[in-house]
Amino acid sequence: MEAGLFIAFEGGDGAGKSTQVRRLAAAFEAAGREVVVTRQPGGTPLGQALRDLVLHGDHMSARAEALIFAADKAQHVEAVIRPALERGAVVITDRYVDSSIAYQGAGRDLGVEEVRALQMWAVDSLRPGLTVIVDISAEEGRRRRGAVHDRLESEGDAYHEAVRRNFLDLAAAEEWRYLVVDGTHDPDDVHEQIWARLRLGQEGVPGERLA
Amino acid sequence: MEAGLFIAFEGGDGAGKSTQVRRLAAAFEAAGREVVVTRQPGGTPLGQALRDLVLHGDHMSARAEALIFAADKAQHVEAVIRPALERGAVVITDRYVDSSIAYQGAGRDLGVEEVRALQMWAVDSLRPGLTVIVDISAEEGRRRRGAVHDRLESEGDAYHEAVRRNFLDLAAAEEWRYLVVDGTHDPDDVHEQIWARLRLGQEGVPGERLA
Repeated sequence: MEAGLFIAFEGGDGAGKSTQVRRLAAAFEAAGREVVVTRQPGGTPLGQALRDLVLHGDHMSARAEALIFAADKAQHVEAVIRPALERGAVVITDRYVDSSIAYQGAGRDLGVEEVRALQMWAVDSLRPGLTVIVDISAEEGRRRRGAVHDRLESEGDAYHEAVRRNFLDLAAAEEWRYLVVDGTHDPDDVHEQIWARLRLGQEGVPGERLA
Repeated sequence: MEAGLFIAFEGGDGAGKSTQVRRLAAAFEAAGREVVVTRQPGGTPLGQALRDLVLHGDHMSARAEALIFAADKAQHVEAVIRPALERGAVVITDRYVDSSIAYQGAGRDLGVEEVRALQMWAVDSLRPGLTVIVDISAEEGRRRRGAVHDRLESEGDAYHEAVRRNFLDLAAAEEWRYLVVDGTHDPDDVHEQIWARLRLGQEGVPGERLA
């Protein structure tokens, strides 16, 4: 049995994450691997209920919101991600811990470090072997998103630039865990860049549990 | 304006907390105070939605459950408890942080200390001036509850004894913050015992925010 492989995609809305997730999943399937594609928030029935509460509910305190996103992750890891990794699958998630750190820790009332600690407790320290940041400017993201869909997407450019900066800071602090790709480039080229990194480093990037 | 006063009731189901909460609220109202009676989980619309997810939803990981109860508390403190204390009200809550510590930290897969840390972050360190533990044996609690109402109430006596032990341990560690009353005693006598403690110590037990 091959070792499980855990890959997260992060970045602003409109950056093109979903396209890259699909392309990467197809590439692994063509290579004969079992692939589990999932997303956060909302990767489990509980997570969907929680996601609806956050995105479409009434005003919620910053701490309550952070805790609800953390609960979604806890359930997602236990019910979906860890079992898939244990049977040797490739798990590709559209958003994971870094989105919570970037969005809640930066743009809102809570510190990056406390959100990180909360998230790490929620996922019992399970981190992706590789996190791909699909990078895009706040302005370009807004243009691509078009209409406002929900509360989180209706924030201004300054907020989205702060979120983007946080993603890039996370990547810069641990380069060996991250790949930053330019979301404005041709999707074929971006996919090739991601696939090349995974082929090179595949054995070195299983889902990793920190001590 | 008088100082806000924050009082929590804790203990097993069937111990008689609700009766004592009502009696105490009536006593403060008769003394001319504004009283806010609330409960956890479920003291806000968000909290009710979260409570329904936990009590009647499918299997949930221990961490997800702890995080959802913590989210309920975060919202409850910000939307209900802190505003009421700031305008000088008496806030009486049926369950608070100690229930999470006692039920999740003891009876399930998580440690008391990590549940406590999570809860304290959720409530931004707001603690009651006085916590009343309405103590009852697991056997007597089961007899009083009668039929099984939900998943949490259907656990066995050993679990409920472990929960009870945790409540008593919390009280023993900080006696000045707690009053333990015997839930099998006459409700009038129990109320008098609580009221006497509050009259004696009233100025010393406002809602307190730890550093």
